[in-house]
Amino acid sequence: MSTRNSTPVSLISEATGGTATATIDETRTDVALVPSFLSGEWVTPEAPTRVVDVEDASTGELVARVSTDGLDIAGAVDHARTVGQAGLQALTIHERAIKLKELALYLQEHKQVLYELAHKSGANKRDNFVDVDGGISTLFTFSSKGRRELPNSKVIVDGPTEVLSKDNSFLGTHIHTSLPGVAAQINAFNFPVWGMLEKFAPAFIAGVPSIVKPATPTGYITAACVELMVDSGILPAGSIQLISGSARDLLDHLDYRDHVAFTGSAATAAKLRSHDNVQLHGLRFTSEADSLNAAILGEDATPGTPEFDAFIKTLFAEMTSKAGQKCTAVRRAIVPAPLVDAVATALSERISAKVVPGDPRDKEATMGPLVSREQRDDVAAAVAKLVEAGGKIVHGGPEELDGAFFAPTILTFADADADAVHDTEAFGPVVSILGYADTDDAVRLAARGRGSLVASVITHDPELTARFAAGIAAHHGRLHFLDRDDAKTSTGHGSPLPHLIHGGPGRAGGGEELGGIRGVKHYMQRTAIQGSPDHLTAITGQWHRGARIQRVTRAEVEAGTGVHPFRKDLATLRIGDQFASDLRKVTLEEILEFAEETGDTFYAHVNEEAATANPFFPRRVAHGYLLVAWAAGLFVEPAPGPVLANYGLENLRFITPVTYDDSVRVELTAKRITPRVTDEYGEVCWDTVLYNQNDEIVASYDVLTLVEKVDTLYAG
Amino acid sequence: MSTRNSTPVSLISEATGGTATATIDETRTDVALVPSFLSGEWVTPEAPTRVVDVEDASTGELVARVSTDGLDIAGAVDHARTVGQAGLQALTIHERAIKLKELALYLQEHKQVLYELAHKSGANKRDNFVDVDGGISTLFTFSSKGRRELPNSKVIVDGPTEVLSKDNSFLGTHIHTSLPGVAAQINAFNFPVWGMLEKFAPAFIAGVPSIVKPATPTGYITAACVELMVDSGILPAGSIQLISGSARDLLDHLDYRDHVAFTGSAATAAKLRSHDNVQLHGLRFTSEADSLNAAILGEDATPGTPEFDAFIKTLFAEMTSKAGQKCTAVRRAIVPAPLVDAVATALSERISAKVVPGDPRDKEATMGPLVSREQRDDVAAAVAKLVEAGGKIVHGGPEELDGAFFAPTILTFADADADAVHDTEAFGPVVSILGYADTDDAVRLAARGRGSLVASVITHDPELTARFAAGIAAHHGRLHFLDRDDAKTSTGHGSPLPHLIHGGPGRAGGGEELGGIRGVKHYMQRTAIQGSPDHLTAITGQWHRGARIQRVTRAEVEAGTGVHPFRKDLATLRIGDQFASDLRKVTLEEILEFAEETGDTFYAHVNEEAATANPFFPRRVAHGYLLVAWAAGLFVEPAPGPVLANYGLENLRFITPVTYDDSVRVELTAKRITPRVTDEYGEVCWDTVLYNQNDEIVASYDVLTLVEKVDTLYAG
Repeated sequence: MSTRNSTPVSLISEATGGTATATIDETRTDVALVPSFLSGEWVTPEAPTRVVDVEDASTGELVARVSTDGLDIAGAVDHARTVGQAGLQALTIHERAIKLKELALYLQEHKQVLYELAHKSGANKRDNFVDVDGGISTLFTFSSKGRRELPNSKVIVDGPTEVLSKDNSFLGTHIHTSLPGVAAQINAFNFPVWGMLEKFAPAFIAGVPSIVKPATPTGYITAACVELMVDSGILPAGSIQLISGSARDLLDHLDYRDHVAFTGSAATAAKLRSHDNVQLHGLRFTSEADSLNAAILGEDATPGTPEFDAFIKTLFAEMTSKAGQKCTAVRRAIVPAPLVDAVATALSERISAKVVPGDPRDKEATMGPLVSREQRDDVAAAVAKLVEAGGKIVHGGPEELDGAFFAPTILTFADADADAVHDTEAFGPVVSILGYADTDDAVRLAARGRGSLVASVITHDPELTARFAAGIAAHHGRLHFLDRDDAKTSTGHGSPLPHLIHGGPGRAGGGEELGGIRGVKHYMQRTAIQGSPDHLTAITGQWHRGARIQRVTRAEVEAGTGVHPFRKDLATLRIGDQFASDLRKVTLEEILEFAEETGDTFYAHVNEEAATANPFFPRRVAHGYLLVAWAAGLFVEPAPGPVLANYGLENLRFITPVTYDDSVRVELTAKRITPRVTDEYGEVCWDTVLYNQNDEIVASYDVLTLVEKVDTLYAG
Repeated sequence: MSTRNSTPVSLISEATGGTATATIDETRTDVALVPSFLSGEWVTPEAPTRVVDVEDASTGELVARVSTDGLDIAGAVDHARTVGQAGLQALTIHERAIKLKELALYLQEHKQVLYELAHKSGANKRDNFVDVDGGISTLFTFSSKGRRELPNSKVIVDGPTEVLSKDNSFLGTHIHTSLPGVAAQINAFNFPVWGMLEKFAPAFIAGVPSIVKPATPTGYITAACVELMVDSGILPAGSIQLISGSARDLLDHLDYRDHVAFTGSAATAAKLRSHDNVQLHGLRFTSEADSLNAAILGEDATPGTPEFDAFIKTLFAEMTSKAGQKCTAVRRAIVPAPLVDAVATALSERISAKVVPGDPRDKEATMGPLVSREQRDDVAAAVAKLVEAGGKIVHGGPEELDGAFFAPTILTFADADADAVHDTEAFGPVVSILGYADTDDAVRLAARGRGSLVASVITHDPELTARFAAGIAAHHGRLHFLDRDDAKTSTGHGSPLPHLIHGGPGRAGGGEELGGIRGVKHYMQRTAIQGSPDHLTAITGQWHRGARIQRVTRAEVEAGTGVHPFRKDLATLRIGDQFASDLRKVTLEEILEFAEETGDTFYAHVNEEAATANPFFPRRVAHGYLLVAWAAGLFVEPAPGPVLANYGLENLRFITPVTYDDSVRVELTAKRITPRVTDEYGEVCWDTVLYNQNDEIVASYDVLTLVEKVDTLYAG
């Protein structure tokens, strides 16, 4: 039973209109329910029975009311499977990537609205930069990587071709294709914008429609962002839907075609993971949970070094950014035992000098409240548990502030092995400082977190760097190394970057997100493909050696009976178009002359005796660089045409040496054609094979060129 | 309560000694219990209370007795974590790979023992080839791929470096490191040798010790293979352990550091997956379950075509190999509706002509029994279910044969959409033939399997090839395309290859194994690494631009005050060793001469007007190939020395064009050093950057060379 409105109750106009902090009356019905966006319409429950009220973190005023009672979740899943899939599958990967960039620019222009709403959740200007601008930046990165690192098609080839028969007639390769279902994304309260966009962007590039379910305490901010995304008109219908409130029966409608990406508590993750559709029906489920992340001070990083200062700054930043409400924040500072007090003192002094708690809308304030009073109580309870386990509060503590505010709190432990400190997460501005005996002990203590999202290691010593990496990498999703060289340019311990994977083993949930194109592939199925060269060519859109060709020879080109592939623009060039050169004989004189002119007088080219003694050469041989230069001479079509430049070369291998009196010829075949969506040209990759007079392969490589979409520059 | 024997009750000597078919007495205690290999010793329960008897599939005679009552599984896990990890981590990846090859050669020599034992399970000569030789071949492949595709170290770098700051001082990359725990491998009965080795090989390369738990009905064959492996003396202590019988409390002792790879029924997979350590404590769990694999006959593959024949041969092979007891076997033949009868008739005729069921030790027999009478009853029940759902038996049927034998059985369905046919697996020589209306209908029917390990598509039409791949790839782990070009060389629908992934979404278990190095990475943790160039260099063992260098110039080399890195063998060369050349000026004359001599008269080098009109060039420019040839001339150390050959080049990109009167210089830095374990030389990859007179990057690439371990060939 829901009301379908073509015009939603706009959270954005509320914010910009200044009516954000509506007066609360007893029934609280004058504050609108946060709308959901399902099956192409903004909807709210008509007569909800279960409603959650959300308060302003600083003032306690009512901000939003949340309910999904009676909303048609099954219909939304069906909408994604049909309309959403159709819209995304109509686009190539590059076309999707371009849309992400347009979306990023649109959000960039309208982000002020999100800033203002987010202040109500306790986020200050710096927090908003992390969440809102960080989210937008993730869109830019995926747009860019999608175009630079992926083909402009719908199939991603994974790894090299495997030749599975001696005669090359049976090959294998791997492809990634879009999951044929839905990407359900369940997010945590602390990053209402970034949390959504970091999951949405890779799913969108992968061609999978998203159903987004934000956490209730900050879901009104996510809803405002989705409203902007929908209003932009940029996204294909069905590619994003929003459930504002309880996800209800969402998982009941999902199966092996679908993917659930969850961020939040381990308890909720376990509940979702135990769903029958995950357990029995192949529903893909990944989770990212909070963990007891460590920052480790290397033994070389004593007080007075730039590394010691960088360590203190890191601890400070992780405590105060988002008031410590980050799943990546440092919970355990692991330092040489003699330095525990020095670290505590330096950190305490920095906090005293810099932290002014207050409403984010107050210009003097430097750190906002926690998101809610409930959250504040949770953190206080966790600190109490740490104290009970032997923790000594050396700065701050739960008593210091009121409401949803929590003071930055430092604890030290006489016993670094107290279970609670490796097990109890205070999800706020709280850090425990633990002393270690030596590097092995530090490695051991770090691993007591039983799997974390991230650890920082602060050291300028390459040997310590290598030892820490070997000791703790397998327990972490990310390791962040800091020293005098990168302290200023580091993006920080707590900031997942779209380029690098985010997630971690064990307690961190066992999942993996982002990581550039790695993150896109989580929304795709990897499939091994076996078949003939023609089969693999048809499936991947890339020419495979042995597949059908359209060949022209130099003689045909000169006779005018064949067209050189370099004379074809992208509109006419086809994969499999091949040019075959004549044979050209190599003389000793030419080898020596090349040596002379280039200066490459390596003995294998100029010293008959030494060349013959070399295990790989029969006698003096032609330079590899002579051969590839000659190959270009053999395949080139010199007159101006649609081929604009040779911008690179890949996978060059010299197989059979060429000595004087041998001859070489080349076959050049259009292998991969990638028109650029926003340029007048595209990339063409040419499979290039150099043969000798006995048809043995001399060299094999890919020539990379830029070719006009339509032959205009030099035409006519 | 177990007996520890330093000399096991050898299954091998039993088999070779000809006492394989022991006389059964009533108490059956004269047939020994199959031993387990735990914590470095062969053990059997002393007074087991729960014992499973295993019979010869053909004769019904007692073959083996199985129990793990009272065995110390917790101790075995601890042994793997300590002794096993230490032994494997003492080896580099290449050293592990060499051991796999030695092991493969050893098993090759002793495989007859396994053949003879396996006959008792119903496996005939051809089945043994698939299981025993297939398993050995998997070892060879992983050995070869480990050495060719991975570094000779312990850390695998994943993907390119990400530059995360403008000044290059903060970088990111990804590494894989060994899981710090145990690879628990739970296998199915149908491949007692291959099933173990295909999981063991990648775990071993990854450096993770295995605990193998075979299925009871054929575990005595696995035990014999493990006995060979242990006796070979090749494997480090603790790298393999064997549980012969129930896995008991194995999962209770595993956590987020460990990995469980399961092959078997969906029901058992679900039971294991629901274990608290999987649900709550991050234990990695992958499963591979049987699925309703399809073979699809394209509309072009009409009777009389080579494709039609290949289709019939595929169906026949999949029904009779291992008597259809393969998780990859074809269960659903999806054919154009008008061809259902033609396919059924042709297949029926082939079966009648070729199948002689019988004891594998009987030379006339061409197809063995199922593994047990229980398995035979299960298949009969499944066929009954198919008949009840509308299936019509057109060949064979459950009544035809006795004991554990089952006749090849073909069913046809008037209604291709009958639920049972897409849902009920008869794990034996049974196939259902379903008619489709058109290609879209065939795609839809294939997907009704709700996720499969593999599908074959038989078509010679590239358009159909592409349509089927796009339509069904995301529902499958592997697609196998067959036509006249690869029918003879194909390795077959049902054969997973070590090069390609094995597994599949949904009903197939959602897991992924093999796939070459992909399979190795399943036993490793991927971790993002952020840090300075020096940090990344220390961690990966690969030099990163910006990291510390040891530089020599041409002047220093000539003055004798510096050693050219080409004069250093692998014993003295260090990553970061750098050679910096002088500047060399480029003249128009040289460009034109190079064009003349190579024949590369592309207009950008010889036609000033056309070059200037090109959007990428300022005017006539030097050939890219001229620049790399000159670079070699600039960096070369011509006299004979430890550098033996330049065998290739990677990632060449031309960044800034070089026109006449520009100058170029080169910096060559040792980036990656890979000594070969079994050769007197190794690979050195040199980071190579060409700069112009303004220090702009002209070209960037990796030069690949072979360098002696010790400078001997031309020394002295």
